[in-house]
Amino acid sequence: MSEPISAEYARRIEELYGPLTQSLRKLIDVVIRSQAGDDDVTRAHGLIDQAAALLGSRLDDEPFGVRATTEGGILTWGNVAMGVRNAIAFPLQIEHDESGRASADLLLGAPYEGPPGHVHGGVCALILDHVLGATAHRPGRPAFTGTLNLRYMAPTRLGKLRAEAWIDSETESKTIAVGELWDADGVLTVHAEGVFIRPKAKT
Amino acid sequence: MSEPISAEYARRIEELYGPLTQSLRKLIDVVIRSQAGDDDVTRAHGLIDQAAALLGSRLDDEPFGVRATTEGGILTWGNVAMGVRNAIAFPLQIEHDESGRASADLLLGAPYEGPPGHVHGGVCALILDHVLGATAHRPGRPAFTGTLNLRYMAPTRLGKLRAEAWIDSETESKTIAVGELWDADGVLTVHAEGVFIRPKAKT
Repeated sequence: MSEPISAEYARRIEELYGPLTQSLRKLIDVVIRSQAGDDDVTRAHGLIDQAAALLGSRLDDEPFGVRATTEGGILTWGNVAMGVRNAIAFPLQIEHDESGRASADLLLGAPYEGPPGHVHGGVCALILDHVLGATAHRPGRPAFTGTLNLRYMAPTRLGKLRAEAWIDSETESKTIAVGELWDADGVLTVHAEGVFIRPKAKT
Repeated sequence: MSEPISAEYARRIEELYGPLTQSLRKLIDVVIRSQAGDDDVTRAHGLIDQAAALLGSRLDDEPFGVRATTEGGILTWGNVAMGVRNAIAFPLQIEHDESGRASADLLLGAPYEGPPGHVHGGVCALILDHVLGATAHRPGRPAFTGTLNLRYMAPTRLGKLRAEAWIDSETESKTIAVGELWDADGVLTVHAEGVFIRPKAKT
């Protein structure tokens, strides 16, 4: 992990990039659903290239990774599921309760489509991998997926979703987690079980 | 499925939106890695909003779904894994060989990150779900994931990847497929097995 980032600087960057990334999520969506005239599409393409040139004038060579703040916080700005600077991210905001249960509420639109009107099965897998994994992380000891078994019970309609996961059993190095995904009508659509491995903390 | 789209119109739209979506993929990446000054970030945000306003001036209410062309082709422009108008899509370009084997070569950068420098386990699941599923589709009879079991053998480094899948066994309504994901060094990183269901064709 690189040098800690000042917590104040991190807050400023999040205030700058958070709303920009939210705008970019909207742009991803309208690119799919647009029925604009050709001239407007061509102009929009030019604006996208201009924005990329401005932001790309100074670039970090590396992906963002995981970085620490001076206040002991962890920044995962680039994470594909939860990154505040990653427009692919839903973003997933995980809530933890006292029992170790992890949950997340999501709203998925056109960009996450697989079968018509429904969430891609692989996106359901991404959500559940992340929420199950969240039960297994410990401070300074992130957990990695060992196995993940998914059972698709019903198609998952685009719209509001809820994911929950809990610990089935665990040892010092391993958590077995179980979780479920529900659609807006409260239908259980995907069931998941996974083994998550915690490498030993560096001493 | 809605009315077939003229094949000529579809080609024109793909020529217009394909390169725009490619530019948007680049923009997603630089938003994560940018070290531009605050003024440039603010200007880029304005350009993104302008592009979204132009494209959003006329919008389809629905996600794109799957549409047919007058030449009998299938358009999946909005698909999160392979859509030419979906900037989240890698995009996955599946090759089929005569034996029914499906494969795809990919190049994944910063936007698909989970653990530092590595592909998110859920993104590996998305790739494998799609490539395994591709062995099970039949003309007019798309297949849906029933179960998907993933075994993570090694961390998947960001960069070039290759996914392959083949049919283990099948019946009229069901395909059992197996597949693997390899990194740029030829290391097998994820193994997958899944059951894919083909609903009866509509008559």
